[in-house]
Amino acid sequence: MRATIMHAPRDVRVDDVPKPTLQNPTDAIIKLAAACVCGSDLWPYRGTDSVDQPTPMGHEYVGIVEEVGAEVTTVKPGDFVVGSFFASDNTCEICQSGYQSSCIHREGVGGSQAEYMRIPLADGTLVATPGMPDADKIPSLLAASDVLGTGWFGAVAAQAGPGKTVAVVGDGAVGLLAILAAKQLGAERIIAMSRHESRQNLARKFGATDIVEERGTAGVEKLKELTDGLGAHSVIEAVGTQESMMQAIHSTRAGGHVGYVGVSHDVDLPGLELFFSHVHLHGGPAPVREYLPHLIELILSGEINPGLVFDLELPLDDAAEGYKAMDERRAIKALLRP
Amino acid sequence: MRATIMHAPRDVRVDDVPKPTLQNPTDAIIKLAAACVCGSDLWPYRGTDSVDQPTPMGHEYVGIVEEVGAEVTTVKPGDFVVGSFFASDNTCEICQSGYQSSCIHREGVGGSQAEYMRIPLADGTLVATPGMPDADKIPSLLAASDVLGTGWFGAVAAQAGPGKTVAVVGDGAVGLLAILAAKQLGAERIIAMSRHESRQNLARKFGATDIVEERGTAGVEKLKELTDGLGAHSVIEAVGTQESMMQAIHSTRAGGHVGYVGVSHDVDLPGLELFFSHVHLHGGPAPVREYLPHLIELILSGEINPGLVFDLELPLDDAAEGYKAMDERRAIKALLRP
Repeated sequence: MRATIMHAPRDVRVDDVPKPTLQNPTDAIIKLAAACVCGSDLWPYRGTDSVDQPTPMGHEYVGIVEEVGAEVTTVKPGDFVVGSFFASDNTCEICQSGYQSSCIHREGVGGSQAEYMRIPLADGTLVATPGMPDADKIPSLLAASDVLGTGWFGAVAAQAGPGKTVAVVGDGAVGLLAILAAKQLGAERIIAMSRHESRQNLARKFGATDIVEERGTAGVEKLKELTDGLGAHSVIEAVGTQESMMQAIHSTRAGGHVGYVGVSHDVDLPGLELFFSHVHLHGGPAPVREYLPHLIELILSGEINPGLVFDLELPLDDAAEGYKAMDERRAIKALLRP
Repeated sequence: MRATIMHAPRDVRVDDVPKPTLQNPTDAIIKLAAACVCGSDLWPYRGTDSVDQPTPMGHEYVGIVEEVGAEVTTVKPGDFVVGSFFASDNTCEICQSGYQSSCIHREGVGGSQAEYMRIPLADGTLVATPGMPDADKIPSLLAASDVLGTGWFGAVAAQAGPGKTVAVVGDGAVGLLAILAAKQLGAERIIAMSRHESRQNLARKFGATDIVEERGTAGVEKLKELTDGLGAHSVIEAVGTQESMMQAIHSTRAGGHVGYVGVSHDVDLPGLELFFSHVHLHGGPAPVREYLPHLIELILSGEINPGLVFDLELPLDDAAEGYKAMDERRAIKALLRP
């Protein structure tokens, strides 16, 4: 089958590889309906994360179940499924508390930028849609498997809700969908921190009420002007750098909440500054599985349209161009059709 | 009047200084009934924090109002009062949300290891007891002004409560009173991390159900053994060093809560480790004023006896010996009688 392999930074190719097979009785094999390139795939692409060996890429997926192991009971061949980028048993104490991405049996899921992929712990990882979704819902369902689920977790972690002023640092797909999540959770005011016009437009479509173009200290000052000098109640960090984390912390009022979902790169939080900031800090890898049933419902009912983050669609064989377009910020997010 | 002045590290003297006077119409002058030495006073005493000039010491206090400014309405001369170590207006949006120690008008309060002291923003800072308390309640009321209020905030920030397993890192007065707070908040199991027998005894008296003597990595391992390998739901950090912060984070299960109240010294939190820990992190200077009315009630009704942390009582003139005894860990906490 065809699969996207990263051989080295900026060297992404679609190669012929063996089709995956069941390895454990809890596995499923799915045939991808669509896949996509994640902002976090750009870390190794740009050489920030190392690439030690040729690596099958992709961890966002929707597709049709092709085959299941003997112990799989909740999905069957022919089901259309959405899953999370961490496989989880969904039964352990940590899963039951809503942190499936820290499941005691968790496994990474990889290789979705391909024709087929293996999903470990299928029962606890996949959620089947009721019937076959319309083709126009597929991008949104694909978004649910990571960027929507991650933005949603950011908004939950930041305690976005009624009466709250929410700020979002980062205008990638996750940041934009965190705006959508904050809106769904009832936030009163949503301030998007973005300097790109096309992203500002999408931010407004998803529910942003204000835009702050400035970054760093200037961004914090501007945001404080908009919030009586106090800062936002809830700030979602969706980048993962030292600058964005400090911008998020400084943009939050005392007693407020920072939800951070950008994978931290070379971030060191100064203890004394954090101490006196008085913020709540929560984040990490999003427990997408926790939110999937609700997100699927919102998508199929037409309540939300997170698939709008895909502004580039390519055949799987052109995956390299998807990476390039996102790296150069010509595209927000690239969808790949196997 | 007599007042404790720190001239340099390890050079604490009780000197004759002018009695404080009203400076603003919102001030009150109180005559101290008791004062004490704080764990945080040991940072400059040990030279970890610098002492640039002779500094009046002490920020924990109970006493009788001697004089009030023209705008003070909630306390009057003759009232017995307890106050917080940050003066607050108790009316701004931040105060109203329960973060008086980040009040937009906050001021530090200092010089309580003396005969008299000035309290800014008296209306928003002081709480009068109903009538004159019995002498045996004075140590507990004094504890409420900082160490109890701080331990309480740590327990609240760590979301200690029914069904929760709570761990406490640090066996100073704040850590010990965090145990008392966790017990009051309904925690099911309370694990004290302490290697000193006298402190372990007090920990048990305050509600600890288990003791872990090991520190650092060994302490974390031991704690995980006691919690099905998952870690505690709630961990209170009451020291303020890199080691204690990391011990607290590593002792917390995914999705659990770290409440940190030790003033951070040379702490840098590694972003990626925090990200994958999946913990909630909250803390900072305790909003003692928020909890004072409830704490005073619990003390006067005899429900709690936080004054047990004072295991050394000295006349004010012997303040230096109080510092020395705490520095050498011969005393948990020294009470000074003016």
